[in-house]
Amino acid sequence: MAVIYADNNATTQIASSVLNEMMPYLTEYYGNPSSMHTFGGQVGKKIKEARAQTASLLNATPEEILFTSCGTESDSTAIRAAIMSSPSKKHIVTTRVEHPAVKNLCEQLAKERFRITYVPVDQNGALDLDFLYQSLTDDTAIVSIMWANNETGVIFPVEEIASVVKGKGIAFHTDAVQAVGKIPIDLKNSNIDMLSLSGHKIHAPKGIGALYIRKGTKFSPFLIGGHQEKGRRGGTENVASIIGLGAASKLSQELMTKENTDVKTLRDTLEKGLLEKIDHSFVNGVKERRLPNTTSIAFEYVEGEAILLMMDQFGICASSGSACTSGSLEPSHVLRAMGVPFTAAHGTIRFSLSTYNTMDEVNLIIEKLPPIINTLRNMSPFWKQNQ
Amino acid sequence: MAVIYADNNATTQIASSVLNEMMPYLTEYYGNPSSMHTFGGQVGKKIKEARAQTASLLNATPEEILFTSCGTESDSTAIRAAIMSSPSKKHIVTTRVEHPAVKNLCEQLAKERFRITYVPVDQNGALDLDFLYQSLTDDTAIVSIMWANNETGVIFPVEEIASVVKGKGIAFHTDAVQAVGKIPIDLKNSNIDMLSLSGHKIHAPKGIGALYIRKGTKFSPFLIGGHQEKGRRGGTENVASIIGLGAASKLSQELMTKENTDVKTLRDTLEKGLLEKIDHSFVNGVKERRLPNTTSIAFEYVEGEAILLMMDQFGICASSGSACTSGSLEPSHVLRAMGVPFTAAHGTIRFSLSTYNTMDEVNLIIEKLPPIINTLRNMSPFWKQNQ
Repeated sequence: MAVIYADNNATTQIASSVLNEMMPYLTEYYGNPSSMHTFGGQVGKKIKEARAQTASLLNATPEEILFTSCGTESDSTAIRAAIMSSPSKKHIVTTRVEHPAVKNLCEQLAKERFRITYVPVDQNGALDLDFLYQSLTDDTAIVSIMWANNETGVIFPVEEIASVVKGKGIAFHTDAVQAVGKIPIDLKNSNIDMLSLSGHKIHAPKGIGALYIRKGTKFSPFLIGGHQEKGRRGGTENVASIIGLGAASKLSQELMTKENTDVKTLRDTLEKGLLEKIDHSFVNGVKERRLPNTTSIAFEYVEGEAILLMMDQFGICASSGSACTSGSLEPSHVLRAMGVPFTAAHGTIRFSLSTYNTMDEVNLIIEKLPPIINTLRNMSPFWKQNQ
Repeated sequence: MAVIYADNNATTQIASSVLNEMMPYLTEYYGNPSSMHTFGGQVGKKIKEARAQTASLLNATPEEILFTSCGTESDSTAIRAAIMSSPSKKHIVTTRVEHPAVKNLCEQLAKERFRITYVPVDQNGALDLDFLYQSLTDDTAIVSIMWANNETGVIFPVEEIASVVKGKGIAFHTDAVQAVGKIPIDLKNSNIDMLSLSGHKIHAPKGIGALYIRKGTKFSPFLIGGHQEKGRRGGTENVASIIGLGAASKLSQELMTKENTDVKTLRDTLEKGLLEKIDHSFVNGVKERRLPNTTSIAFEYVEGEAILLMMDQFGICASSGSACTSGSLEPSHVLRAMGVPFTAAHGTIRFSLSTYNTMDEVNLIIEKLPPIINTLRNMSPFWKQNQ
């Protein structure tokens, strides 16, 4: 059965051009870039190229790019660097809708010596900026706010926030794992101090990420060891995947227009088709200022996981929330923070498309999903109560 | 020019059987193992298999294996977990010859609230066990001692040490990055609490490692985020490389005998040939209780880096110390700890072989190196002073 993969915010297919760039470094060029010999040294040169490619996607300089093992490591590195660099400060500001990589880290830090402010969002998923700005104090070590939400695709005004935060002398970090490659990012002309990205969300392999660290930002390493990454991260470089991230960054730049035209058209068609055919359904979050590939749709009075299982029989892959929070029976903390009613949050499905999706696939989802929702609603006690 | 790669303690070639296992997961099976759909779920099954393969190499259970991004992350995870689990204890015991992943972490912790004991070694590289045991106190949170030294190949009696340490209720960790795959390891019948290993030292790719955590060991995660690895490490799994590590673990078990016969014969031949042909040269560290693939040879009165550059012209790859400390002009901290004289430490070359090396390669090194040493000694003021 053909797979219809509409779960690209969870992970993406490695682009063939990316894998082609990686293959020599998984086979003949296996040297350690730290080695003195030419065989190792030539690997170092290719890493340099990848660093420039990744920097270019963000309009940053190569020296501002630190390669990590994933978005989660980038987030931990950023937040811990900021608090290590300001040891007297004990306050962290973040949002109620962050990815677990930031949310769960902050919850751990709260058990230690930190006070955490979680900025709320409204029913459209928009941040309460007044609340945010009023929470900033001389004790605030860092503000960490995602660029775009992984579940709803809602985009936060991080550049505007960064300017205000920076004006108060506070470090600003953004988890841009979902934004990078989908919307243009220009760090040179921003006040963002640190930015996390992940390779496997932009058609590079799993297990590679990067952290942008603005030149001059106070830093201390999270992963302490050898001299790699100019002493900012110990551990032998994940050579092939770094090269893959470089290639994927280059590809992302090339595909940026397509992402915001063709992919957006697919997403809009899918969203419109499903909302038209299925009543008691609505989109979670603002429709504007949203990632072009993502739609989070609540189908009231049914269970998201049941929808996923029935779609799975047609090879349709989507998500009932973040893959990183799956396994939990709780409805998404993002939807709860937005005040989405229980019966809608539980029936929410996130579709996230990519350049590899087609209009035929979108039409097939629009054809297959309405009868699934019907079937499930006919079995649902909540549905019957509300009819 | 053919490369003669005698630098396998720095990194190894990915075995073709390992890459073959990985390829499907770099291409068609790109799902996220946390996803609800079958497409993602099938990836999770393969990770389970890899976990069992890695456990088998160590005689551990799959539940005791945590996948990480590298040996350095494994080391940080282990040491930080131990100190987080015993917040009142402020003492750490390690050795003077650890890899930078442990050494530099301990140096950082010394700047925080920890007292570090560095156990010395003698001129043969053997640990002072009396010193070690006498250093243990009620305040000791963890003892971290490498299984085998990366530069000299000297093997420490970590199983014996673990028994004594465990008897005092103290956590014991070993950085076994160089030992795994080269000597048999049986964790079930040991008192070792935590053990670090790295994929790229055993013919898996760079960017993957594992930490063995004995069942019942107090643990807290280093990389906090999603629920992956049963909540012990956040971040989407590095699927292809985990599968590669599993395959490499299986291969290592199969090659263990060959490593200790054929590879050892190559190493012994190389060592004997060089010592016979080059006077004022000697092996650093005990010759027995040493990794079968490693020899660290001091060529007195010459510069190791000059030797490397001249060998490089013949395609011969070796190391003047750890690749993770390259770039430094200081002689190796390992050799200094052993009291190797300055003029010998500076002229030390580490050759580290693998199952991919041949007797022809060994003979070529034995042929090419003596004239290189002669040439360099004729240029050396130290050499002239001592003749």
